[in-house]
Amino acid sequence: MKFFLTLSLFVLLILPAVQAQQNTPKEEIIREIYSEALKTNEAYSMLRELTKGIGHRLSGSPQAAAAVEWARQKMQTYGFDTVWLQPVMVPHWVRGKAASAQILSAVSGNKPLQVIALGNSVGTGADGLSAEVIEVSSFEELEALNEKDVAGKIVFFNAVMNPEHINTFQAYSETARYRTAGPAAAAKKGAIAALVRSLTPGHDHVPHTGTTRYDENGKAIPSLAVSTLDADLLSRRLKNDPELKVYLESYGEMLGEVLSYNVIGEIRGSEKPDQVLLVGGHLDSWDVGEGAHDDGAGCVQSIDALRILKEVGYQPRHSLRAVMFMNEENGLRGGRKYAEVASESDVTHLAAIESDAGGFSPIGFSIDSDIVTLSGIKAWKPYFAPYQLHQIEAGYGGADISPLKNQGVTLISLRPDSQRYFDYHHTAEDTFEKVSPRELALGTAAMASLLYLLDQQESQNTGSN
Amino acid sequence: MKFFLTLSLFVLLILPAVQAQQNTPKEEIIREIYSEALKTNEAYSMLRELTKGIGHRLSGSPQAAAAVEWARQKMQTYGFDTVWLQPVMVPHWVRGKAASAQILSAVSGNKPLQVIALGNSVGTGADGLSAEVIEVSSFEELEALNEKDVAGKIVFFNAVMNPEHINTFQAYSETARYRTAGPAAAAKKGAIAALVRSLTPGHDHVPHTGTTRYDENGKAIPSLAVSTLDADLLSRRLKNDPELKVYLESYGEMLGEVLSYNVIGEIRGSEKPDQVLLVGGHLDSWDVGEGAHDDGAGCVQSIDALRILKEVGYQPRHSLRAVMFMNEENGLRGGRKYAEVASESDVTHLAAIESDAGGFSPIGFSIDSDIVTLSGIKAWKPYFAPYQLHQIEAGYGGADISPLKNQGVTLISLRPDSQRYFDYHHTAEDTFEKVSPRELALGTAAMASLLYLLDQQESQNTGSN
Repeated sequence: MKFFLTLSLFVLLILPAVQAQQNTPKEEIIREIYSEALKTNEAYSMLRELTKGIGHRLSGSPQAAAAVEWARQKMQTYGFDTVWLQPVMVPHWVRGKAASAQILSAVSGNKPLQVIALGNSVGTGADGLSAEVIEVSSFEELEALNEKDVAGKIVFFNAVMNPEHINTFQAYSETARYRTAGPAAAAKKGAIAALVRSLTPGHDHVPHTGTTRYDENGKAIPSLAVSTLDADLLSRRLKNDPELKVYLESYGEMLGEVLSYNVIGEIRGSEKPDQVLLVGGHLDSWDVGEGAHDDGAGCVQSIDALRILKEVGYQPRHSLRAVMFMNEENGLRGGRKYAEVASESDVTHLAAIESDAGGFSPIGFSIDSDIVTLSGIKAWKPYFAPYQLHQIEAGYGGADISPLKNQGVTLISLRPDSQRYFDYHHTAEDTFEKVSPRELALGTAAMASLLYLLDQQESQNTGSN
Repeated sequence: MKFFLTLSLFVLLILPAVQAQQNTPKEEIIREIYSEALKTNEAYSMLRELTKGIGHRLSGSPQAAAAVEWARQKMQTYGFDTVWLQPVMVPHWVRGKAASAQILSAVSGNKPLQVIALGNSVGTGADGLSAEVIEVSSFEELEALNEKDVAGKIVFFNAVMNPEHINTFQAYSETARYRTAGPAAAAKKGAIAALVRSLTPGHDHVPHTGTTRYDENGKAIPSLAVSTLDADLLSRRLKNDPELKVYLESYGEMLGEVLSYNVIGEIRGSEKPDQVLLVGGHLDSWDVGEGAHDDGAGCVQSIDALRILKEVGYQPRHSLRAVMFMNEENGLRGGRKYAEVASESDVTHLAAIESDAGGFSPIGFSIDSDIVTLSGIKAWKPYFAPYQLHQIEAGYGGADISPLKNQGVTLISLRPDSQRYFDYHHTAEDTFEKVSPRELALGTAAMASLLYLLDQQESQNTGSN
């Protein structure tokens, strides 16, 4: 066990500026980074390989294993100094046959619903189940119900993502709990299954999967997401016919744990090789679509950020790492393992940048750090202004890097425009075709530029905790 | 003939602020505008009708006539005070059968090329033509050639759009002249046809049409665009086999002029009904795809901007007009007619906002005005900051509204994120499916909010010219 130092990347801002490794103005290096990203767009080529060559890659799947090997080879091909696999045990959940659902109503007739089983959920098996439906739009409504009114029924969480938020992640953060914790809460009240409105502000027929978590001592009930249009339809039909039943059939199964890997590539720092600046994304994805925006984009941007800095001839002072985390989607085992190994190693992480909000036009960064570091990074706004990065402010860092927080690491999230993210998130629609090459490249360049500026910054340990 | 006044919208900024029509803070009205846009998204429903119900709508086509009637009815349905058609004669060009092209080479074999005839161009007719090819990447290169080296050949303009510009319109403005003026310049040198690299920074098989202009006394030669990937291929093959020929076949034909219309809807101002604030887009489109981003988006956003202001109960002080211009693509007759009629009417236009850069996430406005007005609008940045509008600066106003410039009108362009625009621009790919409902709605709300702020501003005539 080692003691962690509280690091502030910016304590020396008032001292004489660190001597630049070269005499080129920073603006020019950043211009070179953007040019390299936009002209070659290796990230886009990599994304094609990952999505079209391998496809989706849920933890434990053969495709996840293929993606690990692909990422390893890719970073070796680019000539990073060291590339290695970090073993981590991950849950191996399988969807089985696609889920189906149908409204059964003597009043309004039968009607199939577009559904998808939630990740980690148990299935109904081939016999399926039919039950009456209780609709709620919040946990408060569920709590207010009597257990006898819920027992033996399907709880239908129909919480609408608020379309009025400009940042769609804000709306997501308000409603995602019905997917992650709704089924467990329903089971506690005696429900035999849960149906959750898909997490998108859109109105379409595409159901969105995503992880759900059962209580350790609670009952695991079949849990499915229903498309937003069918959620609206079911809600209308329930008003006409509160006694209607819904038939559900799903096949999810947790197979236990298997060995997988985080994939790490490093360019060794010339001055402080034991101090690390990290960029990363997660290599696993849901088992529908191709995991293109979530999070193939973040992976290829991270690899390409290091490749670009190498390509423009930049010699980093600190060690730069691109990390492809495993199992963000249904366990976060990769992120936890990475932080655990880091805590026991001799290296210190100064900052970690994650890209896990889609390969869309970047608009800035959100930063989870001490106030001095935050101010220091905000002071770089003029460097980013020519590239339409304008929102550089305090905020969430990222799931995979979050376990590094208690090691005093500055956590930073690339923040892309969020308008289209939930059109594709966790669906069959999250494919390579939905990624714009230029938008992806701008994200890559934003990350590489921030990595460069961070590397140029002098840092200092300010104390122990 | 009337004399135009030089108008500055902001001369009274230093005088006591105009009394607001209501006591609600401006921030709150803007919040209501955004909520209405994002919750109902009538613009998106309208765009579906226009693109899926009518389709593409080149000037003079039956679909253009249908679009005129559709826009008229739509604005009447929304209860605008006055809706009218403004007659304008427009060129009626027809593409005829789709163009085709093929490399003919004894050295490397024959190879079809993805091409599309340029708008306004003459065709080869069914016999087609075959000729050797001279590749140039600039007008300077063309000028440097001897006429005898060009005579009887096809000039191939292979100017690459610079991918390093962050704003893709900047790259477009640098290379669009090869499409608009290249064929005329080639004809002057004796070429019998022109082939122009498609105007996109992308690498794909989709050819992009767009207008070309022959010299009044010059020869009209068949003119086609070739996809960027096939431009690269042709360029490579020419290096191997400079004597290869290309076969071209196209059927474009200018049929003369026909009557069409600008469509105008107005909400009458309560205080200064003879002073107009305009929002607009162009109703015509190219005759491929569905004219969704170009410029169905701008049309429906303009109509919806007025609808929203009405819906939130706002009583405008000045008259607000939504104008669907006809014939932006191959003549600008609608824009010119509108300005001509305005110059002879009793109303004065204070400002005109155009949306013609796609229905993507808006990032700001570019403003063509006197410096005082520019500063005044820039001072509104805090109103727009919560909505990710951050680029509010001097720049181009818009094609359709440009003829209003010499009437002293402040011209403003909605500026959306430009990364994907040239993936679709003037191609079969410009369809409804490529428009994000939320991105479209944010553009609508941005325009309605700016219209509202402009309407709240006191204006004053500063002199005559």
